[in-house]
Amino acid sequence: MRVGGKHFRTIWAAEPGRSVEIIDQRSLPFELVIARLDSAEAVAQAISTMAVRGAPLIGAAAAYGLALGLADDPSDAGVERVYARLLATRPTAVNLRWALDDVRRLVAPLAATSRADAAWSRAAAIADEDVAQCRAMGEHGLALLRAALARKPGGERLEVLTHCNAGWLATVDWGTALAPVYLAHDAGLPVHVWVDETRPRNQGASLTAWELGEHGVPHTIIADNTGGHLMQSGLVDVCIVGTDRTARNGDVCNKIGTYLKALAAHDNGVPFYVAAPRSSIDWSMPVGVGAIPIEERDPAEVHSLTGRAADGRLVTVRVTPPRSPARNFGFDVTPARLVTALITERGVCAASAAGLLGLYPEQR
Amino acid sequence: MRVGGKHFRTIWAAEPGRSVEIIDQRSLPFELVIARLDSAEAVAQAISTMAVRGAPLIGAAAAYGLALGLADDPSDAGVERVYARLLATRPTAVNLRWALDDVRRLVAPLAATSRADAAWSRAAAIADEDVAQCRAMGEHGLALLRAALARKPGGERLEVLTHCNAGWLATVDWGTALAPVYLAHDAGLPVHVWVDETRPRNQGASLTAWELGEHGVPHTIIADNTGGHLMQSGLVDVCIVGTDRTARNGDVCNKIGTYLKALAAHDNGVPFYVAAPRSSIDWSMPVGVGAIPIEERDPAEVHSLTGRAADGRLVTVRVTPPRSPARNFGFDVTPARLVTALITERGVCAASAAGLLGLYPEQR
Repeated sequence: MRVGGKHFRTIWAAEPGRSVEIIDQRSLPFELVIARLDSAEAVAQAISTMAVRGAPLIGAAAAYGLALGLADDPSDAGVERVYARLLATRPTAVNLRWALDDVRRLVAPLAATSRADAAWSRAAAIADEDVAQCRAMGEHGLALLRAALARKPGGERLEVLTHCNAGWLATVDWGTALAPVYLAHDAGLPVHVWVDETRPRNQGASLTAWELGEHGVPHTIIADNTGGHLMQSGLVDVCIVGTDRTARNGDVCNKIGTYLKALAAHDNGVPFYVAAPRSSIDWSMPVGVGAIPIEERDPAEVHSLTGRAADGRLVTVRVTPPRSPARNFGFDVTPARLVTALITERGVCAASAAGLLGLYPEQR
Repeated sequence: MRVGGKHFRTIWAAEPGRSVEIIDQRSLPFELVIARLDSAEAVAQAISTMAVRGAPLIGAAAAYGLALGLADDPSDAGVERVYARLLATRPTAVNLRWALDDVRRLVAPLAATSRADAAWSRAAAIADEDVAQCRAMGEHGLALLRAALARKPGGERLEVLTHCNAGWLATVDWGTALAPVYLAHDAGLPVHVWVDETRPRNQGASLTAWELGEHGVPHTIIADNTGGHLMQSGLVDVCIVGTDRTARNGDVCNKIGTYLKALAAHDNGVPFYVAAPRSSIDWSMPVGVGAIPIEERDPAEVHSLTGRAADGRLVTVRVTPPRSPARNFGFDVTPARLVTALITERGVCAASAAGLLGLYPEQR
């Protein structure tokens, strides 16, 4: 999408076969930093430090990472070593395993000498496919937004609430949850987005607000505590969020706090849509609630945060008492009963096994 | 309660009739700053800048403020001017109006020369009554905590979740929601508190965590997004929160985000208790949802926050993009249907008109 009027993706080939470039998302919203990654280890670091984040982007980055690793060591042992290193970076994202499995499956039967090139081509294709899939989710979601807008009095804008960042920064381009919003905005529909700050890492306040602002989409940042009041007050027409992992029954594992917004939407009759790319669907997991392991991250993310001081410097400040402990659960699971519909690249479906299998009959 | 082993209240007479001292809560959790307030205007400033905050403490502070104002100008016009100045500081807290009305009613029939002394005595009595009321709420709530603990396997600790600060810092002493927790801890019951950070002002991370820690109560700070996951995972036995304004039907207006936790508690069968001192009950308001006006505060509280940098200085940092707007709703309303029971100084009752009137028959 647009940054300062120029089109960007989040990851692109710098020197094919040798390096990729990424937007280092840790510097946003303060600075646009482009980083070059020239090894599997550099990619693994970028994923685990969240320089790149977002399930679909993690998948594409991991595929490039495996390709870069095979350029160094294309042996069977090399494949397994780099595969394991990359897989360990983020335990929750099913896209990560999906992309790594895809590349490994492709290169396994090949001679060692041709593995790196094949992996590189496949990584580039995964990135392009992600863009096409996000665009397709955007088109399907756009129909839902048009319908929601048609239910409002003429002249009123559509009020969308989103949590975390499921925008283009979480993917290669377009985003998952925000793809319909970008398409609506580009089509001239009046749309405004309530952006959950998304503590403790503030992906909403820092990334979603930044990307919406750069693309010109009207938006307002709110504390995560606010969505219930907004929905109770009729100030939200539609919620759209992403998913890191979608169980076969339609339960969705997404950024911590998603479940609370789904409860509020349900309590107030607000549609709650989840943009679920195929790569997020874990067909081997029959039910999500109580079954999907929840990644626990460094408590330091709760104790401290980084922002720009009055003098322009980036400063990390601690906001909690020195001796108080903190816990930092990264995700929660929203039960399918609270999800109005899933938006996939093949269309919109009920959040249920029947709904998903209707669109993916090959998984029956 | 205890700070560094010494007993403190949040407000006390420094020079009776001339000044009060307070803990300036804006410096917590980093520093214990005692401030002296020697005029009604100083008290009004302390309330509006949230040097003192929390509905019960605001009431006591406002009563002292009116007494200080009458020491300067005890005329009828003086009473009205100071009353209006103090009332305008925080529109949501019903305690504020209650305490000011109480003092004004007392001094109205008195000669101007005796008004200041009478108001001062009444303010001191309001502070003492708050301590007694909080202690009584603590005793009633303690019975609920004992019952909840008895339902758990022996040896397990009781897991309590609270939002914002309804501890002793929000009152004169003991707190409302935390009074039962302090009594449980002091009685040797194993209790642990999940402390919601409470964005955007972080009263949980800065105040609740600090006061629990100073008193020695085990606790863990979490992002506001976390409670739903904890309840879904069986990690919370009881929620207890405060209320700034309680409608006659049991709807409660409390810190923004309370409603989301009540929804999660309801969805997971976790008891959701609200400590509602009499002074929070607005008998003139039949229903809270859609009726209680919600205070909107400065968006700067969403854009920026203050913490301690590595070099020890307090630094305010901005965490949002420079051009993104924010909104800052201070409260939300939790419908009575989500409240398991109200804890009042007269006992525990259903969150309903019938429940409240059973304890307060004089309001029929």
